[in-house]
Amino acid sequence: MQLCSRCGGDRVVYHRVYSNERLCRACFIETFERRVVRTIGRYNMLRRDDRIAVAVSGGKDSLALLHVLWKIEKRFPEARLFAVTVDEGIEDYREEAVRYAVEYANKLGVDVYVVSFRQLYGFDLQEVMETSEYRGLGLQACSVCGVLRRKAINYAAKQLGATVIATAHTLDDIVQTYFMNILRGDLKRVEIGLRREEDGAIPRVTPFRLTPEREVVFYAYLMKIPFQASVCPNASQAMRDPIRKFLMEYDEKYPGSLYAALKSFEKILPAQDKEFTQRRCRVCGEPSSKEICRGCELLTFIQRGAVCGGMS
Amino acid sequence: MQLCSRCGGDRVVYHRVYSNERLCRACFIETFERRVVRTIGRYNMLRRDDRIAVAVSGGKDSLALLHVLWKIEKRFPEARLFAVTVDEGIEDYREEAVRYAVEYANKLGVDVYVVSFRQLYGFDLQEVMETSEYRGLGLQACSVCGVLRRKAINYAAKQLGATVIATAHTLDDIVQTYFMNILRGDLKRVEIGLRREEDGAIPRVTPFRLTPEREVVFYAYLMKIPFQASVCPNASQAMRDPIRKFLMEYDEKYPGSLYAALKSFEKILPAQDKEFTQRRCRVCGEPSSKEICRGCELLTFIQRGAVCGGMS
Repeated sequence: MQLCSRCGGDRVVYHRVYSNERLCRACFIETFERRVVRTIGRYNMLRRDDRIAVAVSGGKDSLALLHVLWKIEKRFPEARLFAVTVDEGIEDYREEAVRYAVEYANKLGVDVYVVSFRQLYGFDLQEVMETSEYRGLGLQACSVCGVLRRKAINYAAKQLGATVIATAHTLDDIVQTYFMNILRGDLKRVEIGLRREEDGAIPRVTPFRLTPEREVVFYAYLMKIPFQASVCPNASQAMRDPIRKFLMEYDEKYPGSLYAALKSFEKILPAQDKEFTQRRCRVCGEPSSKEICRGCELLTFIQRGAVCGGMS
Repeated sequence: MQLCSRCGGDRVVYHRVYSNERLCRACFIETFERRVVRTIGRYNMLRRDDRIAVAVSGGKDSLALLHVLWKIEKRFPEARLFAVTVDEGIEDYREEAVRYAVEYANKLGVDVYVVSFRQLYGFDLQEVMETSEYRGLGLQACSVCGVLRRKAINYAAKQLGATVIATAHTLDDIVQTYFMNILRGDLKRVEIGLRREEDGAIPRVTPFRLTPEREVVFYAYLMKIPFQASVCPNASQAMRDPIRKFLMEYDEKYPGSLYAALKSFEKILPAQDKEFTQRRCRVCGEPSSKEICRGCELLTFIQRGAVCGGMS
């Protein structure tokens, strides 16, 4: 019979392959949460008096993050926690997610702020994607959505007076992003979710940076967190998708590869990251590698175009 | 009808997707060879009076390389070209490859030097892999083979008084290796095939660094170079294999990704590469990140073990 590697208990529920630990429920939860605390500490992600806006989509990762941070922050009465949810207007998908987000935040007693593309930009994602102007750009839904969602989260966080934004990107997400940036030669966006203070921008942190996706899912399951299980209908179009699949399979075959990759990137990338922080978008004032940031560029294009009525 | 993007001729044989060029036979060959020349120049790979040892396995890539370099070097009478072939002793595979290598080198009038694991180390790869001592190490055939082949090529190149070793690694191979090193957190070996002069080591260069695998295959086909088409029986075990497949598919879906990745790595990696060159293997004197290089470590282990008769 397998025993828990930590407490010797006989009800093993999880096998952590890369460290060869077998864990019972309590030890899994404890090591999971401790790793989040350690991650926050190691990268100086949060301060005791932060106003933390947690970006919550309604999926498992973000609800698990809200849950863990809510638990951790109970020990820090000076800190404030908010949930920020963006409704992009993705048909037959997002409404349900927003409901999960709001209900779970309410259950934890965390204030939740919902902001929609429609309210903020005057259009839905679906609507944009169906216009011929948008199609002419040859953009993928995920690129547009990602850029504009980021902008919407920044907006909401500012409204709340947040001092930091926490996103639920996992180890898997972060390594995927590094690979994706490498594969498109886009090294301007290299450092992800490491608290970096810049004028005019609320820093972003990723407390799941050292936690594999798989463990986040299992934690959400153990915690009985109700979440939206369906995948965004646009996900399979994403450039990220084949990278995600490849890395998942590779790490399964060679456990520990994701950690090794993260370590590699952390070692080689910081040197690249300097010039980026110098510039500010002329429209919104956020840090940008170009004169006008990608978000404002897209917005201008879309708002001028057919969606919001005629070229100006 | 499609016309050649360069000369306007009507017999297009190749579509270069990433640049959207359609090329006739002559223009494909010319641009292919010119790119090799440009690669050599850009990275300062070769000098006019080099004694070049070309590592030739008998596969398409290395025979194509021998062919191109033979063509280029005709313009540089001070340079000397040799083919170096390693017989690792892989059953039902390598003998045929060695034959192709020797015959093609003879056809071009290039001297060929064949060195075998058996002759150099006292054992065949097959033999090593079948011993229980080797199995106990949990090593993959390709790791052992790669390290020892490299050593054998160095040996042969030294015998020939070569000043540089040219290998047929393509754009694909090089990007794969970068990804593989990232995924195993092994940043000691980052720079691949860029001429680097070090005491006690013959520098290595990769004139196909900017040439996609696919074009090398097509060049070999157009040149009617006879090569061994079968794949090494051990290839599917390699850690490289899933990376190779992923990158091939990704670049097919998003043409130009391999170039973008190479550019990314060239931008971020050089800074990492300093400490490595300082140390020398205590046994063979080649550059090594450890006191004894991997090759000598493996050799000592294997030669002491059952293969060559009893633990000493």
